[in-house]
Amino acid sequence: MPKTEISIRIPYADTDQMGMVYYANYLVYFERGRTEWLREHGLCYRDMEAQGLYFPVMDCSCKYHSPARYDDMVIVHTRLAQRGAASVTFSYEITGAGRLLVTGSTRHPLVDATFKPVRFPAELRASFDAAYEKENSDC
Amino acid sequence: MPKTEISIRIPYADTDQMGMVYYANYLVYFERGRTEWLREHGLCYRDMEAQGLYFPVMDCSCKYHSPARYDDMVIVHTRLAQRGAASVTFSYEITGAGRLLVTGSTRHPLVDATFKPVRFPAELRASFDAAYEKENSDC
Amino acid sequence: MPKTEISIRIPYADTDQMGMVYYANYLVYFERGRTEWLREHGLCYRDMEAQGLYFPVMDCSCKYHSPARYDDMVIVHTRLAQRGAASVTFSYEITGAGRLLVTGSTRHPLVDATFKPVRFPAELRASFDAAYEKENSDC
Amino acid sequence: MPKTEISIRIPYADTDQMGMVYYANYLVYFERGRTEWLREHGLCYRDMEAQGLYFPVMDCSCKYHSPARYDDMVIVHTRLAQRGAASVTFSYEITGAGRLLVTGSTRHPLVDATFKPVRFPAELRASFDAAYEKENSDC
Repeated sequence: MPKTEISIRIPYADTDQMGMVYYANYLVYFERGRTEWLREHGLCYRDMEAQGLYFPVMDCSCKYHSPARYDDMVIVHTRLAQRGAASVTFSYEITGAGRLLVTGSTRHPLVDATFKPVRFPAELRASFDAAYEKENSDC
Repeated sequence: MPKTEISIRIPYADTDQMGMVYYANYLVYFERGRTEWLREHGLCYRDMEAQGLYFPVMDCSCKYHSPARYDDMVIVHTRLAQRGAASVTFSYEITGAGRLLVTGSTRHPLVDATFKPVRFPAELRASFDAAYEKENSDC
Repeated sequence: MPKTEISIRIPYADTDQMGMVYYANYLVYFERGRTEWLREHGLCYRDMEAQGLYFPVMDCSCKYHSPARYDDMVIVHTRLAQRGAASVTFSYEITGAGRLLVTGSTRHPLVDATFKPVRFPAELRASFDAAYEKENSDC
Repeated sequence: MPKTEISIRIPYADTDQMGMVYYANYLVYFERGRTEWLREHGLCYRDMEAQGLYFPVMDCSCKYHSPARYDDMVIVHTRLAQRGAASVTFSYEITGAGRLLVTGSTRHPLVDATFKPVRFPAELRASFDAAYEKENSDC
């Protein structure tokens, strides 16, 4: 299945005294995957915000299968898991050296600068629909 | 219901350009609540690690109800939600000015320094059982 | 010499795989000390920003004498070191268990929302002058 | 002058409510530059630690010239500024869109796992000497 992949070299900053990545930091990796997913689908989140459209996080979940460590190269695989009337859900897999490290998801409503829900503009809706079709087709 | 409460003054560092706390940072507040929950129940996590007992995070989830902002005083309410044979689950509520901001949970297996599962020592088991009884009793 | 003191319990999040606080995190402790220094001198930084006055960091320096570790209680001592025509400098000492851990300083110009330098309003100038006198007097 | 360059795409996580990168985060970018500088000169810091050699930070300084913002691509230029008998100093320049954003330096003693100073092994000394010659030669 097609999905967006980015590579991240784990900095020392992200480790903790257990010698592995501290659990909250994977959410930052998710965000980096999400930004690149949007870019790959013709959407620049920075520009969206400049136009008054925001995707705050509504909920998230994370499962920790195996730890990432300092200097590891990990890959964040990002996919659009759902697009509803008022929100979109991304799912993530982080792998390293071919092993599954972390999985998770985040849900985002579309809101304006005052955090009021906003209808998806037609163009944005079309981009998400096309992306969803492409990522979830059989071939 | 009894539960452990700690106060956190939100630092500027934890905000993002949306003007609210970045979503990953609440997991750090959960951790601070967890450490104090353990201390309040006679368990010092630092000492546990010194004895070779670790509580890494196995999974977590988080719902964002309302944003915390710079300089807000928030309260993290921590409770033992479940204690299984091999893991414990904490649940959290973060409130500010009487409003619910964030809820979530984290699950932790007990492992040794090589990350192998460890049976709960009797004393530790007893502490968690007593805490669970106290937090979930009717009165 | 009088100065503002705050206590911080070191979270696990702030440690790294050397088993001590990662060096960048002390700058967050400085910021927390700075916010409380301002509050103690009748200035709320949140309100300052609401009025269009910002104190971004212009430069900073940090010396690491001895490491802080997970669960340590450390104290951040903040003092106004200099007040110039266009900027103020704070200096910091972080101690733990009576030992000096980290020292440092940060310099802040006063700017408006577009980052243009701003003259200190008379009231703000007076607050800093009074604070400086108080912290640097002999008695 | 030759030096090691790495690119970093600024994540949302690193911004603050001023809409720019929070000042402590640049120290993480410095660390990432340092790790790659070592790798480019045949030294893997992960392996160094595995052999019991550590480079904690002894002091650091940072000047903020112009802010980096969300989604900016910045370049961290890392150079060996000094190599003394007991420590090495790196200097950094962070640029974005051709503009100088941040400059700084970090000093690191060589220590063992108990934080006792260690003489530079001959091979390590030779690597630093060769790097210094190369980075500071006229041609």
